[in-house]
Amino acid sequence: MSSARLIDGKAIAAQIHSETQARVLALKEKRGIVPGITFVRVGEDPASQAYVRMKGAKAAELGIHSDTVVLKESTSQEELLALIQKLNTDPKVHCILVQAPLPKHIREEEIFSAIDFHKDVDGFHPINVGKLLLGQNPLFKPCTPAGVHELLIRTGVPLSGAEVVVLGRGNIVGKPMAAILLQKDKYADATVTLLHSRSKNIADHCRRADIIIAAMGQAHFVKADMVKPGAVVIDVGVNRIDDPQSAKGYRLVGDVDFEAVRQVAGAITPNPGGVGPMTIAMLLSNTARAAEAF
Amino acid sequence: MSSARLIDGKAIAAQIHSETQARVLALKEKRGIVPGITFVRVGEDPASQAYVRMKGAKAAELGIHSDTVVLKESTSQEELLALIQKLNTDPKVHCILVQAPLPKHIREEEIFSAIDFHKDVDGFHPINVGKLLLGQNPLFKPCTPAGVHELLIRTGVPLSGAEVVVLGRGNIVGKPMAAILLQKDKYADATVTLLHSRSKNIADHCRRADIIIAAMGQAHFVKADMVKPGAVVIDVGVNRIDDPQSAKGYRLVGDVDFEAVRQVAGAITPNPGGVGPMTIAMLLSNTARAAEAF
Repeated sequence: MSSARLIDGKAIAAQIHSETQARVLALKEKRGIVPGITFVRVGEDPASQAYVRMKGAKAAELGIHSDTVVLKESTSQEELLALIQKLNTDPKVHCILVQAPLPKHIREEEIFSAIDFHKDVDGFHPINVGKLLLGQNPLFKPCTPAGVHELLIRTGVPLSGAEVVVLGRGNIVGKPMAAILLQKDKYADATVTLLHSRSKNIADHCRRADIIIAAMGQAHFVKADMVKPGAVVIDVGVNRIDDPQSAKGYRLVGDVDFEAVRQVAGAITPNPGGVGPMTIAMLLSNTARAAEAF
Repeated sequence: MSSARLIDGKAIAAQIHSETQARVLALKEKRGIVPGITFVRVGEDPASQAYVRMKGAKAAELGIHSDTVVLKESTSQEELLALIQKLNTDPKVHCILVQAPLPKHIREEEIFSAIDFHKDVDGFHPINVGKLLLGQNPLFKPCTPAGVHELLIRTGVPLSGAEVVVLGRGNIVGKPMAAILLQKDKYADATVTLLHSRSKNIADHCRRADIIIAAMGQAHFVKADMVKPGAVVIDVGVNRIDDPQSAKGYRLVGDVDFEAVRQVAGAITPNPGGVGPMTIAMLLSNTARAAEAF
């Protein structure tokens, strides 16, 4: 049996980082602007700490200034909103990233909507999501689906008229992913079906697809017999499964049964090393974009 | 051959109008508020004149106050924006409806985005569209897809897990229609495929569908052999076709080959008399909603 071409997210992300670095340099030399992003972290979730540290380090590598505001777990809705208002009006802050997940007592929706949409580097503000669906070229597209889109474009996957199945209707990946690919655009024009927990005939839909984008958060959900030979399979999932062999007692796996599916697919993202590196690449590209538009 | 149940848009619209009338009465009696909508019309397009007149007459019937501002065809972008700013800040104006189409020299996108989204009774503002896609319950949903949704709900069409095909990806119908039906919600939860001019296998997609919503603007596009027996067919299209028999030289037909499709479908909207009356019903329901939220 043949084996699928691997879509190398690390290599493509590295290419985007190098483009961003050049844009940051140009901003500095031509306009004297250093792009700045402020991370807001609430509480001491270890994963959030690690994410923010990693994003900040990569930003620094590219010449982007970053600050991190750490608030205590007990921060109130009003205190967090007040901080966002302050950052909204601070001209040195081009972008604001409030790291999810927030503590349970915080109403996330209100927080994300309070960020000035010109600084909404995550692309989660309703006005940016609305522009995305309307085909009105928002300043920011959500980083993960935008990263998947770049992977498809840069590996030359034909999109016009392609049958695409998006698994999962989350606000962070599934819905904006569908919105990107269904647009009337030379880099889109796909026929998109969005599948979710209430969908029937999921395997049949998948078997018809030229491109499967798995973002529902179920370990190894996409099996080899759900994939049309030659199809492109993109694995967005990050799931913990028990692994007594591992020091941590678990390991991270995707939504795709990689070893089996790669025998059938035409191209596939490894996981890790596929979509993951693209999210931060798009985040820092968005940061440069915010400063360019400032 | 059996014949499909007719989905009576006129009767359902009449029911919604009567609910709106009761809400308007309650607003007046309990809070002394008369809901007000201002129509803005630019130029002398006869169809636009007729639409605005009809909407205003129906509003009056329900106890809703309406004004119409008529601007000349040569009105500039800036003049139109200035009018919208004035209406945005006028507390007597709960809703603003700028009648499309606008003259060619006007940038429509900027105009619709300039309307205060609290007064955006058409539901076209990016922030309302974004909230719609994000499942954040916008104040206003676009009237035509919201009307189709009401038709489906009020005729008891099962939506959860239903295979829905939306034909057409316009910003006014197709995209928001998909956004409504794919939500995690007891009145949605459908599996939606959005088809458009670049889609392949359109007939196959249609034949798998439990519900077909035709909104691509091609006369009689949906034929009987594209419809699964028992499927629900909703015809949003309004197309002019030549008709030498008619005094006007044309007649209006839908996107569905009604006479043939009704022999196969389980339920179908007539056209006219199906979706059409629902659009104005949702518009005036939205107007009452704006005043209720004021």
